[in-house]
Amino acid sequence: MRHFTVELEELNHKLLEMGGMVESAIHRSVRSLVEQNKELAEQVIRDEPAINRMEMQIDGLVTRLLALNQPVARDLRFLTSALKINTDLERIGDLAQHIAERSLSLMHHPLVKPMTDIPKMASLVQSMLLKCLDAFVNGDTEMARNVLLSDDEVDNLRDAVYADLLATMQRDPGVVPAAVDLIFVARNLERIGDHATNIAEDVVFLVKGIDVRHHAEDETDLSMPRPRE
Amino acid sequence: MRHFTVELEELNHKLLEMGGMVESAIHRSVRSLVEQNKELAEQVIRDEPAINRMEMQIDGLVTRLLALNQPVARDLRFLTSALKINTDLERIGDLAQHIAERSLSLMHHPLVKPMTDIPKMASLVQSMLLKCLDAFVNGDTEMARNVLLSDDEVDNLRDAVYADLLATMQRDPGVVPAAVDLIFVARNLERIGDHATNIAEDVVFLVKGIDVRHHAEDETDLSMPRPRE
Repeated sequence: MRHFTVELEELNHKLLEMGGMVESAIHRSVRSLVEQNKELAEQVIRDEPAINRMEMQIDGLVTRLLALNQPVARDLRFLTSALKINTDLERIGDLAQHIAERSLSLMHHPLVKPMTDIPKMASLVQSMLLKCLDAFVNGDTEMARNVLLSDDEVDNLRDAVYADLLATMQRDPGVVPAAVDLIFVARNLERIGDHATNIAEDVVFLVKGIDVRHHAEDETDLSMPRPRE
Repeated sequence: MRHFTVELEELNHKLLEMGGMVESAIHRSVRSLVEQNKELAEQVIRDEPAINRMEMQIDGLVTRLLALNQPVARDLRFLTSALKINTDLERIGDLAQHIAERSLSLMHHPLVKPMTDIPKMASLVQSMLLKCLDAFVNGDTEMARNVLLSDDEVDNLRDAVYADLLATMQRDPGVVPAAVDLIFVARNLERIGDHATNIAEDVVFLVKGIDVRHHAEDETDLSMPRPRE
């Protein structure tokens, strides 16, 4: 059995690697949309199974760490948070794939409008994702709270996108199918922001739990020996 | 420390209770939409914090069970599955709330069309939810696979709803805002079906893991004493 801290390092590394994979997927799917680039969208769809495999690997690693090391207190909360964050990342990968699919569906329509707000939403949620992963790995609640603050900005951009697209559809019914595709793209970006927010909330709970749940932790530590620290 | 199996019973009970809460929320939100009943939509929105509290209670219970009982093999997989299912249920509660919000937004519009497919989608995903929770509690992979099969039916209904609403918007641009609300309702129902599917997949993994991962389990059992069985 390898040393617990070495395996925790591996888990951190894999979560960041998975974060990088889904970050690329978001980036490519939105570029594919803006540049009407079919190849980029197809690449996102082709890469999605690798993200799913990574999710299963990380789940397996966490389950092994739980089984073999019987962690308590912060280590235990870290591992249960890792399970949740893993699920959030996999869903973000799905959402990037949905954007890529919408992008392919829009490929044969002229662009409805310059779509400046959609790339703006995309870079905002990409930055939220990077920050919440950094916050998780470094236990940085300051950065996690920073992510939580961005969520309102995402919602405002989404409202602007919706209002524009509704008005465009009412003026020109011919663009309805393309505009509905773009509404879903904005919705998918908003949900990526929601998942980044979930991750940031997990980080705050993970770190804050140490302070505010001190008494509960003491009880846990008394009831069984605390392994390797 | 209470007996592990008693606490597992309590966990099962709480997950089913949470399942019942979100099932009611779906039912009420869709009835509110179809009957244009404001009170039902408001009830769903009012009840949502209780679902969030239940999610936190269940997370706390699972974390305590992991910390105090050091479960391995199937018990460990059961607890990690419970964490995931808990998250899925909480998201379903959010989606029911989104439907209730759309229902309120639609309250002052005449109904776009009879919407027969939306109630059909709703009762299908409600039945998927009930089945996957039964499957989880009873370890019933047959019923879990049954849920996985329903997913295509949900997708077909969603395609029918989308096609209808797109055509309606193109014929009559005045209904665009209401039709977009209904497109989101269909999308939310589809996602409820996706979460039920996630739960069903967790059940198959949980139960099947015992058979197909037998060698891995042996290794785990050798490396540490297997508690209470």
